[in-house]
Amino acid sequence: MKQVRGGVTAAKGFFAASTAAEIKYKDRKDMALLYSEVPCKAAGTFTSNIVKAAPVLWDRDIVAGGFAQAVVVNAGIANACTGREGMEFCRQTAEHAGAALHISADRVLVASTGVIGMPLPMERILKGIDAMVPALGEDADSGHEAALAIMTTDTHEKEVAVEVRIGGQTVTVGGMCKGSGMIHPNMCTMLSFVTTDVSISGELLQEALREDVKDTYNMISVDGDTSTNDTCLLLANGKAENVEITEKNEDYETFKRALNFVNETLAKEMAGDGEGATALFEVKVEGAETKEQARRLSRAVVTSNLTKAAIYGHDANWGRILCAMGYSGAEFDPEKVDLYFESSAGKLKIVENGQAADYSEEEAAKILSEPIVTATADLKMGKEQAVAWGCDLTFDYIKINADYRS
Amino acid sequence: MKQVRGGVTAAKGFFAASTAAEIKYKDRKDMALLYSEVPCKAAGTFTSNIVKAAPVLWDRDIVAGGFAQAVVVNAGIANACTGREGMEFCRQTAEHAGAALHISADRVLVASTGVIGMPLPMERILKGIDAMVPALGEDADSGHEAALAIMTTDTHEKEVAVEVRIGGQTVTVGGMCKGSGMIHPNMCTMLSFVTTDVSISGELLQEALREDVKDTYNMISVDGDTSTNDTCLLLANGKAENVEITEKNEDYETFKRALNFVNETLAKEMAGDGEGATALFEVKVEGAETKEQARRLSRAVVTSNLTKAAIYGHDANWGRILCAMGYSGAEFDPEKVDLYFESSAGKLKIVENGQAADYSEEEAAKILSEPIVTATADLKMGKEQAVAWGCDLTFDYIKINADYRS
Repeated sequence: MKQVRGGVTAAKGFFAASTAAEIKYKDRKDMALLYSEVPCKAAGTFTSNIVKAAPVLWDRDIVAGGFAQAVVVNAGIANACTGREGMEFCRQTAEHAGAALHISADRVLVASTGVIGMPLPMERILKGIDAMVPALGEDADSGHEAALAIMTTDTHEKEVAVEVRIGGQTVTVGGMCKGSGMIHPNMCTMLSFVTTDVSISGELLQEALREDVKDTYNMISVDGDTSTNDTCLLLANGKAENVEITEKNEDYETFKRALNFVNETLAKEMAGDGEGATALFEVKVEGAETKEQARRLSRAVVTSNLTKAAIYGHDANWGRILCAMGYSGAEFDPEKVDLYFESSAGKLKIVENGQAADYSEEEAAKILSEPIVTATADLKMGKEQAVAWGCDLTFDYIKINADYRS
Repeated sequence: MKQVRGGVTAAKGFFAASTAAEIKYKDRKDMALLYSEVPCKAAGTFTSNIVKAAPVLWDRDIVAGGFAQAVVVNAGIANACTGREGMEFCRQTAEHAGAALHISADRVLVASTGVIGMPLPMERILKGIDAMVPALGEDADSGHEAALAIMTTDTHEKEVAVEVRIGGQTVTVGGMCKGSGMIHPNMCTMLSFVTTDVSISGELLQEALREDVKDTYNMISVDGDTSTNDTCLLLANGKAENVEITEKNEDYETFKRALNFVNETLAKEMAGDGEGATALFEVKVEGAETKEQARRLSRAVVTSNLTKAAIYGHDANWGRILCAMGYSGAEFDPEKVDLYFESSAGKLKIVENGQAADYSEEEAAKILSEPIVTATADLKMGKEQAVAWGCDLTFDYIKINADYRS
């Protein structure tokens, strides 16, 4: 597996464009268009929130059909809590883009992110589509500009791509995503778009995605709020011309590893760029009896406000970590737990068998002052493990979310 | 029912004392002693966190026995994650207090709040007990000083008392509690002590408490972190000399109303005095099919970081409220929901049938600028309702929890 330059346009046959449609922002691009020159098999996972944004309902239907060829994304307005009118916005967007791209409207996925409850300015959306269709490019820059255009409170764009060899052919998997508030995915993350030229059956494509989100997007949390818009779309256009993957053989595992690399990278980027974050906070739970137990425990820790505030303060306040594990709903023996803090500044045992180890607070503070901080809890119960990613809770999180309607 | 002056010493036969034992704080009282001149029936509810502080384990055993006569409380150190030594601290404290009060050690409850993982300074604890026993008083001031002594990051003491008539006698129920971080009770709250002179069977006392915490302490949240130390103790010494309540008759209901008033008042005080809070945020869910559905929905909203930050910003960001309801795990139809904001500055319909109503943002901001803010969601499904209490999420919450080990 080799990481390569680019994101959603890295795989063969994928094009992207972006534009400043002035949906909410006045000084930046806020729409992106993603297009494959041939129809793609489409897989997707969506928010578990009962309040589902209109684009989620639209895309769910299309993904159920199994095929798609384009995605229209806008930032600034979420098109959530917009009732029947919201569905009408999706239909108009898809029909307009479909006509311009000479494909059927039911091959056009749509995605929105931003404020809940406001209507989409359809005139600007349609004008944006008109501007993007002739500007579609398959170079890395086109993908990069699209990754910038879909951001809301993100401080930087998020994209990644890798190549693997499958059946003698080079297969590429690339993606882009955006955060960075209302992030506590329960099916998938806010908005993530992954493209690949692999040739694979639609069933296995969906299964690969469904399995992988459990260990990637579903293991991150910025603020515990599961969005109305969470959407992860995976498009496979077969242009790599490998022998189609139709069973769980070695090729399937190779593809899954590439997909996992792309998803995990994007998920970590989202967590580390959480609203107001100064650090990526990684929590590993090792020595668990079951994978689900390890997931539940690590997620509880990255979601704990008190723990996140302590990470911001570079304070080795380990009691808050054990406390969060304790209310996670997963069983374990607190008096067996060892806990370590680790970063580029070193590694330190903080807790041994559930009680304070003999460590230097000064050294711990040094470790916690780095931009990537890892807490590892060893349950000493079994061999399973899981990793969750979050970020610290900072003054800027409050500023971003109290000061303006994001 | 009549509210009266005082707190834990309001009921007949209850005494309190407090002292500066220098457990962690240098400039204030940090220990309290509560004592009844006759043995009490004891009821209690405790944290559901798997990581239970030693005093929780100690008290659970005593409450299971049904009787107690004194409570020793300290602030500053939680005696949690302290292993076998932690249980030894409890035993020594109870034995020392028992000897000084001429009662058995297994009639002495203990409670601790503060930093997790540090050992209790036993010499100072025992000295503190020696100072408090001769200072026990049954006046309101003694109770008031005790309420002050148990505070940690609380900005003010919390106490309340009411009188009711039961079987021709005046029965008093009074209590004190403390918050104000790591508050998301799942069995009961951080530390709450309620005393009453009612005569009641031990079974009904425990049942009354267990039922009432569901609508009081278990409906508040400051930060979503369920503490290791949550403890609510209810002591009844029978000094009111009413005919003992042994069945669920009118007397029982009268007592439950008084208990509910005391618990709800203390719970709301805790929520409104949450760490860094500038507002008490009350969330009512009406028109629910079941009580449990209403509880789950209202709790999800008061726990949502994004909603809490919006309340701090006086921003009628209702999308965040519907979003939180959506991921609560309770079923409802988002397209039926009406939502209102209300405070002493007025009442405003914000959402009608799941979409923005025609309201003035300016007027909404005015309503949200008051120190007590209520959001009411009408599900239009049935007749059940529930109320949850929380607070806004502010810069000071971050300051308190990032800047020092609270």
